Amino acid sequence: MTETPEHLKRLRRDLHRHPEPAWREFYTTARILEEIERIGVDEVFVGPDALATNARAGVPDDDLARWRERASEAGVDEATLDRLDGGQTGAIAVLKRGDGPTVGLRVDIDALPRTESSDPDHRPVAEGFRPEHDDAMHACGHDAHATIGVGVLEAIADSDFEGTLKLIFQPAEEVIGGGHAIAESGHLDDIDALLAIHIGLDYPTGEIVAGIEGMFAVSNFRAEFAGESAHAGGHPDHGHNAVQAMTTAVGNLYAIPRHTDGATRINAGDVGGGSASNVIPESAYIDGEVRGGTTELREYMRERAETVIGAAAEMHDCEASVEWGAQAPSADPDPELRRLVYDVAGTVDGVASRRERGELGGSEDATYLMRRVQEHGGQATFVGIGTDHPGGHHTATFDVDETSIGIGVDVLTDAILAIGEQKA
Amino acid sequence: MTETPEHLKRLRRDLHRHPEPAWREFYTTARILEEIERIGVDEVFVGPDALATNARAGVPDDDLARWRERASEAGVDEATLDRLDGGQTGAIAVLKRGDGPTVGLRVDIDALPRTESSDPDHRPVAEGFRPEHDDAMHACGHDAHATIGVGVLEAIADSDFEGTLKLIFQPAEEVIGGGHAIAESGHLDDIDALLAIHIGLDYPTGEIVAGIEGMFAVSNFRAEFAGESAHAGGHPDHGHNAVQAMTTAVGNLYAIPRHTDGATRINAGDVGGGSASNVIPESAYIDGEVRGGTTELREYMRERAETVIGAAAEMHDCEASVEWGAQAPSADPDPELRRLVYDVAGTVDGVASRRERGELGGSEDATYLMRRVQEHGGQATFVGIGTDHPGGHHTATFDVDETSIGIGVDVLTDAILAIGEQKA
Amino acid sequence: MTETPEHLKRLRRDLHRHPEPAWREFYTTARILEEIERIGVDEVFVGPDALATNARAGVPDDDLARWRERASEAGVDEATLDRLDGGQTGAIAVLKRGDGPTVGLRVDIDALPRTESSDPDHRPVAEGFRPEHDDAMHACGHDAHATIGVGVLEAIADSDFEGTLKLIFQPAEEVIGGGHAIAESGHLDDIDALLAIHIGLDYPTGEIVAGIEGMFAVSNFRAEFAGESAHAGGHPDHGHNAVQAMTTAVGNLYAIPRHTDGATRINAGDVGGGSASNVIPESAYIDGEVRGGTTELREYMRERAETVIGAAAEMHDCEASVEWGAQAPSADPDPELRRLVYDVAGTVDGVASRRERGELGGSEDATYLMRRVQEHGGQATFVGIGTDHPGGHHTATFDVDETSIGIGVDVLTDAILAIGEQKA
Amino acid sequence: MTETPEHLKRLRRDLHRHPEPAWREFYTTARILEEIERIGVDEVFVGPDALATNARAGVPDDDLARWRERASEAGVDEATLDRLDGGQTGAIAVLKRGDGPTVGLRVDIDALPRTESSDPDHRPVAEGFRPEHDDAMHACGHDAHATIGVGVLEAIADSDFEGTLKLIFQPAEEVIGGGHAIAESGHLDDIDALLAIHIGLDYPTGEIVAGIEGMFAVSNFRAEFAGESAHAGGHPDHGHNAVQAMTTAVGNLYAIPRHTDGATRINAGDVGGGSASNVIPESAYIDGEVRGGTTELREYMRERAETVIGAAAEMHDCEASVEWGAQAPSADPDPELRRLVYDVAGTVDGVASRRERGELGGSEDATYLMRRVQEHGGQATFVGIGTDHPGGHHTATFDVDETSIGIGVDVLTDAILAIGEQKA
Repeated sequence: MTETPEHLKRLRRDLHRHPEPAWREFYTTARILEEIERIGVDEVFVGPDALATNARAGVPDDDLARWRERASEAGVDEATLDRLDGGQTGAIAVLKRGDGPTVGLRVDIDALPRTESSDPDHRPVAEGFRPEHDDAMHACGHDAHATIGVGVLEAIADSDFEGTLKLIFQPAEEVIGGGHAIAESGHLDDIDALLAIHIGLDYPTGEIVAGIEGMFAVSNFRAEFAGESAHAGGHPDHGHNAVQAMTTAVGNLYAIPRHTDGATRINAGDVGGGSASNVIPESAYIDGEVRGGTTELREYMRERAETVIGAAAEMHDCEASVEWGAQAPSADPDPELRRLVYDVAGTVDGVASRRERGELGGSEDATYLMRRVQEHGGQATFVGIGTDHPGGHHTATFDVDETSIGIGVDVLTDAILAIGEQKA
Repeated sequence: MTETPEHLKRLRRDLHRHPEPAWREFYTTARILEEIERIGVDEVFVGPDALATNARAGVPDDDLARWRERASEAGVDEATLDRLDGGQTGAIAVLKRGDGPTVGLRVDIDALPRTESSDPDHRPVAEGFRPEHDDAMHACGHDAHATIGVGVLEAIADSDFEGTLKLIFQPAEEVIGGGHAIAESGHLDDIDALLAIHIGLDYPTGEIVAGIEGMFAVSNFRAEFAGESAHAGGHPDHGHNAVQAMTTAVGNLYAIPRHTDGATRINAGDVGGGSASNVIPESAYIDGEVRGGTTELREYMRERAETVIGAAAEMHDCEASVEWGAQAPSADPDPELRRLVYDVAGTVDGVASRRERGELGGSEDATYLMRRVQEHGGQATFVGIGTDHPGGHHTATFDVDETSIGIGVDVLTDAILAIGEQKA
Repeated sequence: MTETPEHLKRLRRDLHRHPEPAWREFYTTARILEEIERIGVDEVFVGPDALATNARAGVPDDDLARWRERASEAGVDEATLDRLDGGQTGAIAVLKRGDGPTVGLRVDIDALPRTESSDPDHRPVAEGFRPEHDDAMHACGHDAHATIGVGVLEAIADSDFEGTLKLIFQPAEEVIGGGHAIAESGHLDDIDALLAIHIGLDYPTGEIVAGIEGMFAVSNFRAEFAGESAHAGGHPDHGHNAVQAMTTAVGNLYAIPRHTDGATRINAGDVGGGSASNVIPESAYIDGEVRGGTTELREYMRERAETVIGAAAEMHDCEASVEWGAQAPSADPDPELRRLVYDVAGTVDGVASRRERGELGGSEDATYLMRRVQEHGGQATFVGIGTDHPGGHHTATFDVDETSIGIGVDVLTDAILAIGEQKA
Repeated sequence: MTETPEHLKRLRRDLHRHPEPAWREFYTTARILEEIERIGVDEVFVGPDALATNARAGVPDDDLARWRERASEAGVDEATLDRLDGGQTGAIAVLKRGDGPTVGLRVDIDALPRTESSDPDHRPVAEGFRPEHDDAMHACGHDAHATIGVGVLEAIADSDFEGTLKLIFQPAEEVIGGGHAIAESGHLDDIDALLAIHIGLDYPTGEIVAGIEGMFAVSNFRAEFAGESAHAGGHPDHGHNAVQAMTTAVGNLYAIPRHTDGATRINAGDVGGGSASNVIPESAYIDGEVRGGTTELREYMRERAETVIGAAAEMHDCEASVEWGAQAPSADPDPELRRLVYDVAGTVDGVASRRERGELGGSEDATYLMRRVQEHGGQATFVGIGTDHPGGHHTATFDVDETSIGIGVDVLTDAILAIGEQKA
């Protein structure tokens, strides 16, 4: 393959135009199932059959119906939607081709709840595949991930690969919500070699990173502050101001001391509170996250964050609760598998440079899958597929260079073939 | 009248069940028009005929259609809704009965955008008139105000009053948005005596306050902070964190120094920012208000608030804009008219105690109307109608004692009759 | 008297050149005693004989020796200093002239711990009576108060006054530290009429305010934060940062909600913490005050301040303690005595305008003396003596117009004579 | 040497009892000169002859006289003190022994401005060498550094070393103030191998770290906030509150975002403001520092800190100035020299374990010396000498295990001899 095939570009753009946040990937899963059917595989596991339902995290309480309806309006049939009921999205496609090793490829498929740029120079605008709605965006390239997954499935189906390929289309990575559920599904326990991927990460088109390490341990949290309202003009002292509690907490969360032992992160990524300008706010919330270069560092941040939030509430006579949501551990690539990918990348057209190791500087719930495979005796690595991206990950102008989709398909296909040969 | 008539109680409960925030009083206005028609008056001015459209403040950009539709679903005919198009709500009913003085009675009709208590002991719940929807609540008694207005109109229509009565059903008091538009409409310029009212205010059922003073000057504002997003794990320093800017501003807004010359108020009543836990927040906002015992004190708070907001944005490399919305001046009752109300109240059944003067401790855009009348040579007062209310104004458990509706109707009717006689 | 006599100006300037903060008025008391001796009185009570030693507040732990030594260097003899040992400063001079009423005049004598302006245009600089040391300043006019006291004592001694005059030179007003000790001394219990005074307060030279009311109740506090130090580079997370606790507290102290019932004040007037730039601070403190228009409002501020300080410490894993120091109640002038002063002021040369009532907007421990006299059946008022002052009270460029000293002496002398006549 | 000799223990305890902060090492330098004289060397450079006077940083404005006097009272003769006039402390002793290489050993000699523990179990208390005064403490082991320097000088003087040894007793390391001045003196330019040392750093007694890396780049700063005072009760809005500005800055300084590229540090180590509880504070300051794992990271922190401080001042209508004081770059050990030290350490009695590399996690102005030597073609390393220390560096209970002094002397002496042999 020298260029990304048109049908994969079209698929990527279709997914880009229909971004769906975590556990709401109704259209996306349906679209992937169509492709799987087109390709023809031996087994398909969908929704509840692909994941351990109770191990999901970050499933929204009340926002699913709207997205299911939107998918329905976009043409997804009810039978398919019924299979995904309650936000049980995602799928696993299995090709069984003889006695060789079992290889897993995990791609994630969800979008972010943010508005995409409407700048006329932004390619999705210029070329007509910006989403219609402003409430979600593929700002992290998972549209490309899903597309690469489809491309690899197709290529291996057409190859003389011997062994089993499990193509895992994982939902809800952005909320660190799906990885654990896939890991607990049982589908990974016989995998000999797991490849997980990410596009971009500031690596340019043509660069391949065979093993990305340094994945932060992460925990999401939701802090809620409950105070008491009062008339802001007539009775300013009668209320208990939940917004004062929240804002005091935010200031002090970012000011949690740096740590001797390594990198930490904190973000109050989504906050709000109050109801009207003339009412002392009776409630407020923070949706945030803490990270650490190790699990210990993340735990340090968790403990400090709890203390800050509790004291900020107390300071303003409010009550606070903190719920810790999705979290992920860290995991490291196996050197042998990493080396195999590195070697293969050297033989692929379009790969201009390759690195054996790289740093993520973020978090990924692929670590759950990697650990599961490693605990059952298999190997795993996390492969970076460079792409030129005009805006940073998670920003309004993020986009991928579609050339990199073809490169990704080729590198991963060749790696899977090489694993097949090696293990045979 | 010894008791509040059943039809007025029913009206109040119907309005309570259909709370509509500022400029969205479609159902409310329609319901009032029904009552006006039932009573029969000489002239009715509706929506654009009742107010100076361009002098409105706080009209929502995009929320009107939903409320119009809700009113339609509740049975309001399209012809009426067309008269209120674009949120031109409210009405003025005029009774012309001979050569006497022109008297105005102003009642406000809007609700607050907050959720009402669902406690089974809360009377609207217990007796079945809590609103169906959770997005608005008559938490300040304007349902009772509108009902009192209807009651007085009915009573004067049936009386031998000589003169002209203008019953002003004003929209959008809660956002300080309607008073100016009514004042500028021209309808007030021939009024000899204007009565404006408020129920509750911590005065018990049976108490009448003939002239409430100390109405804060107030200005609402919307501050917006624009930063830049980034991946919170991978690039914590790349963004410009608008939530840090906003929370720093909030802390320092409440800390604006108290003033030598009197009372000031500040409230960040509704705040928010960010999009997802793993994205450095690129935007944030504060909907707030400042108040002062005088216009000068309010201006002090405005200037300080602008400085705080601007510097907080700069501190975090963000841009801030502040838009100042609705505002109201202060106004004081005329002693002569106040005395008349005080004297009349002494003769009304159900009035257990009366005060000549009281303090509001809040703000009211009735001050625009009072000033307009006073500037044109008329007199004005702001009358308090006591009511036992279980929760404070603007809180989830606010409710009125319906007995006070009948008392209010009687006091105001008798006051209007007395004005008619006096001026004759 | 048409002009302030030269010897009083000299006295005032001598005191101005030797400012001494609370309980350190060694030179000041000695200088006053010289004047008392020159005038000749019937009784003098000094230091421990003038006040209830145990009722003093705000006595410094360790700073007395230095000031005693400085007074000694300025020429005060050791015998006098011994009488003031341990910071028992201040004096009461008694003139007994027959059977008339007992009149008290209270003047305060302490300076503030701040640096005076060295601007060549600042009169004390230009005319050579700026203090030599930079650690104290008569920035509130108590040098003029003491001088007026001496002037009145002299004038009454030379008059045909019948009755008893107690001239009270009170120490430590600025820390609200001496008033209670004087009130508890027993010297006030037979006073029929007490006059307390203050110069300036934004009233111009030539204006007299017969009764100042609205004196805030006040409480001083010292908050201490104890954390743990660590190397700021090597172990940023090992310490417990007392400066973070303190600064979080300060921000939230100023943000304590305004109160429905009236004016409140808060000030973190003197703060500090830490030791070196590369050490995580292990300790910090706030010397502050709260005030309220009533004692209840002050108590509201106290409670809120304690909550804020405690929670700020907890937030940063520190310990906090709050010690509440000096405090004063509120007190109001007796209308009858106030009227007498008002009437007398109308007859004094140099009085260009007079007010019967005024507002302080600050606090004064004269309230302890006023309440004591009132509780024992006497009357009291707090008299304002206008003076043009270039800088505000407590600022580096504060100064008095010395013309007002003569006017003050005359008004008070005539008032005392009038009381003598009236009660006779 | 199997044990630390008694005379070195005595020297260390004498220095411990006389701690002197940066540029005030009068007693310390004099004591070292005594030892140098006792040993006998070829050249001694003292004060202005040992350092580039104008390259000093952090020299105190007004605190030198007191410390000089204290040294004088402790028995230092005036002639010696004159040589150190104006805080030109420190010395370089040179042994010239034939044609071999020039070796430098740099030890720092200053103490910290903090109070030492007075716990009876704290060894300096128990054994009588706690300092008399509470204003300084050898809380970082520089007393041991100086002693090791003396021990090595003595050992090399008695050895058959061939070459030149420059023993550099550097002042003012704690304020990052002396390193640059030594580097610029010219004495380093012919050094072939430079050893710098630090004791402790959480390595236990018996452990040697041959090359410590990861030394943070650091900059100290002093921020001053100038506002305007006012009477806190009477005119709370008249002032410009410098303490509010400072505390807002501190909160936001600690909240400067973590950086993608590596470790950063910030500390507001010494803060203060205001004058009296009833005066709105007119001035405040922060003595702080920023650090970064690289010079770029430090510059990021500097820029962000300036923005925060400027905006905090503006927010409260104050003026801010930031002066950046002492700073140091980073530097890394030369692998060859590091290896030599590592190998030598393996042969020294008392060395129980050794590491080739270690992390500092702090800053050191030894980097200036290392870079200078490296720029002139020499090699450098920074050697860690483990010691059991009960309290952390910079804390009140820090102390060294004196056994480690002897071990340090032996390792360094053997390393210098080895360098001599190797280069010969």
